[in-house]
Amino acid sequence: MTNSQWSRPTTSTALLTDQYEVTMIAAALADGSAHRHCTFEAFARRLPDGRRYGVVAGVDRLLDALEHFRFGEPELALVSRFLDDDTLAWLRDYRFSGDIDGYREGELYFPGSPLLSVRGTFAECVVLETLVLSILNHDSAIASAAARMVSAADGRTLIEMGSRRAHEESAVACARAAYLAGFTATSNMEAARRHGVPSAGTSAHSYTLLHTDAEGPDEAAAFRGQVERLGVGTTLLVDTYDITEGVKTAVAVAGPELGGVRIDSGDLGVWARQVRKQLDDLGATKTRIVVSGDLDEYSIAALRAEPVDTYGVGTALVTGSGSPTAGMVYKLVEVDGIPVEKRSSQKVSRGGAKSAVRFARPTGTVVEEVVYPLDAPVPNDVELVGRPLTIPLVRGGDRVPGLPTLGDARELLAANLVSLPWEGLKLSHGEPAVPTRFVG
Amino acid sequence: MTNSQWSRPTTSTALLTDQYEVTMIAAALADGSAHRHCTFEAFARRLPDGRRYGVVAGVDRLLDALEHFRFGEPELALVSRFLDDDTLAWLRDYRFSGDIDGYREGELYFPGSPLLSVRGTFAECVVLETLVLSILNHDSAIASAAARMVSAADGRTLIEMGSRRAHEESAVACARAAYLAGFTATSNMEAARRHGVPSAGTSAHSYTLLHTDAEGPDEAAAFRGQVERLGVGTTLLVDTYDITEGVKTAVAVAGPELGGVRIDSGDLGVWARQVRKQLDDLGATKTRIVVSGDLDEYSIAALRAEPVDTYGVGTALVTGSGSPTAGMVYKLVEVDGIPVEKRSSQKVSRGGAKSAVRFARPTGTVVEEVVYPLDAPVPNDVELVGRPLTIPLVRGGDRVPGLPTLGDARELLAANLVSLPWEGLKLSHGEPAVPTRFVG
Repeated sequence: MTNSQWSRPTTSTALLTDQYEVTMIAAALADGSAHRHCTFEAFARRLPDGRRYGVVAGVDRLLDALEHFRFGEPELALVSRFLDDDTLAWLRDYRFSGDIDGYREGELYFPGSPLLSVRGTFAECVVLETLVLSILNHDSAIASAAARMVSAADGRTLIEMGSRRAHEESAVACARAAYLAGFTATSNMEAARRHGVPSAGTSAHSYTLLHTDAEGPDEAAAFRGQVERLGVGTTLLVDTYDITEGVKTAVAVAGPELGGVRIDSGDLGVWARQVRKQLDDLGATKTRIVVSGDLDEYSIAALRAEPVDTYGVGTALVTGSGSPTAGMVYKLVEVDGIPVEKRSSQKVSRGGAKSAVRFARPTGTVVEEVVYPLDAPVPNDVELVGRPLTIPLVRGGDRVPGLPTLGDARELLAANLVSLPWEGLKLSHGEPAVPTRFVG
Repeated sequence: MTNSQWSRPTTSTALLTDQYEVTMIAAALADGSAHRHCTFEAFARRLPDGRRYGVVAGVDRLLDALEHFRFGEPELALVSRFLDDDTLAWLRDYRFSGDIDGYREGELYFPGSPLLSVRGTFAECVVLETLVLSILNHDSAIASAAARMVSAADGRTLIEMGSRRAHEESAVACARAAYLAGFTATSNMEAARRHGVPSAGTSAHSYTLLHTDAEGPDEAAAFRGQVERLGVGTTLLVDTYDITEGVKTAVAVAGPELGGVRIDSGDLGVWARQVRKQLDDLGATKTRIVVSGDLDEYSIAALRAEPVDTYGVGTALVTGSGSPTAGMVYKLVEVDGIPVEKRSSQKVSRGGAKSAVRFARPTGTVVEEVVYPLDAPVPNDVELVGRPLTIPLVRGGDRVPGLPTLGDARELLAANLVSLPWEGLKLSHGEPAVPTRFVG
């Protein structure tokens, strides 16, 4: 038996955890502090450089992972190398029994937004730190980048095709986060199976190159094979040899009902214009133009004036377009009702369990987010409309029934982006789109 | 039953694949081209901006994933949404039966290095594209960044602690890649279980904050709890409140045999010097100083003159220190013995199956890499010592027995870095450390 991820003897998520979480539990069990009632909070101290907003993503994946956070024999065998019997016994019985509140997936967040609040004993909450942050930091970073691309595309179709530039499991979560943010489809089949994301794809250059014999390349044969099997609605990749020849051959083979052509190299704007004219002249007026090749939100925006129907986005999406992690932290903010906070330089956290409400003008435009102590009354405002941001996610260790779906999150984000002040959707560097106010 | 990764009904890796791989197979099966004998090659057109070398990593993970690349019922149910019966039947019987040659893990690579060569029918090779690239691009990006950090640390201990800033499964692969590159340990327990990477960790700020009561914080109580359970050899985190007070309390509690202190904030160089003096004055002359907090290869190098014993590295490691993906591609280079290549702008590939040899002076310093046609004689040189770079990895679909282990890869990389011309280890931007020559 190998020891790999694919043949692993367990579906537990418990070891996806930093070792110090369990050594802390060992020390805290020994001196009794492990059982004190605590609140941990996940938040971002700041947004990635110049970003105007962040997008919460990964909550549903986190709740799935939480259900599989159990120390069975394979997990105990590992931790028994460095833990005492009391701690092993505690881990063997571990099942999170506390409460979790948090922002919905698809909600916007800003510096200091209390986007996840985890309450229970110290030991049962601290052990979740690594997994909470891995999932939220990854998925939120990708959704945040994806949302900017969706804004830049201004209603045109976006297909996520970055799997090959990401860890094979990260790729699945990227596809999900991109769909949440408004992408239309993904190339990743596991994301289709696991999360129900619509999937898409037709052919690569290798398929065209395959149709080469002693006389040389035969692009028409490749196109014929694809159209015969996948139908005239398919998208033909026209840039393996010469784009103008490729388009001519594509329409000759498929006829003017050809679904689309894809251009993956060259100056995409220039080629889109030229190919549109060529297609129209050939009578293929409804044939869509798909462009791909190192696109990011800036190049997507730069192509707005060109006759592009669909963008295929890969590397920039799965690497968070320069910000591959969201930088969220998970901090102890309250112990037995006493607010606690770190005091050392530049990493100050605000003590006390918190909740948040976002205020908008009656027209819908968001004005500010107010973060307030969890046990204080919800702030209100005579002129503004407040919307509570936190919902119950887990009660007594169990997932609250009826939580928002991936589709709900997608709709929520779309509505949220409409509610931002207009500067908030600018791609240029700037301050957070909405100020956050902390009230005592 | 949920549909999540953790409870998935299958350990198959087959759907970690772009949809177009299987639609191409459908078209190629229909016109008969699917069975042509092909060679696909994985290589990087260029290194990330300014990098001098890349490090091959992920090969062993890829071979594990290949063994689980099977279309069972859950996989077939998904692809049956868009594939015909002939293609489904072919996928149902799929098992890679070809040959794979490649660079060892821990080998250096440069632009154009033919680091993986996959031979078989078109269909059996093309379907592996996404998985090959996901794994190699991710793991090589992390190992390449990690190797620079190891060089910068100049023999001091490095601990990988970036799990929280990476997708939860990517984190495990990052820990493995960092160890391959010379890191001493990881915080990630699953990497310890799955890959045998040494793991480490003691405590976080939350553990110190936990020891707070109505009278305020009690750092000494926290340190006592930790030392009692984990022993005086443990590392105490001294920067929760005031570093100088923290160090004083740490030695008062643990005595001068205290294993280490960790500083996670502030000007790490200034603090390291000050804390070293304080520890020495307290008689704790062997207590190690561990620093952490947004370290990358540049800040590690900047701390060389300071009395730092161990670096903890997180975000920069798991995000590839600015280059989170290696940008490798997987290209069809030969069909039935005929070299093929894409001709469109800026994405030219070199046709024909290739192998490579690296030449060094008799002193050991590498001079150049020569890439040559697979069926040509191995190039030689009267004055230089040549080392073949490619080894057989898979024959007839089966993994070749006795392939290098993770430990072997770690040793190979260490030896490789010693063999680079000295400019090759500079952290500053520059050209690839070794030129690659392509011979016909």
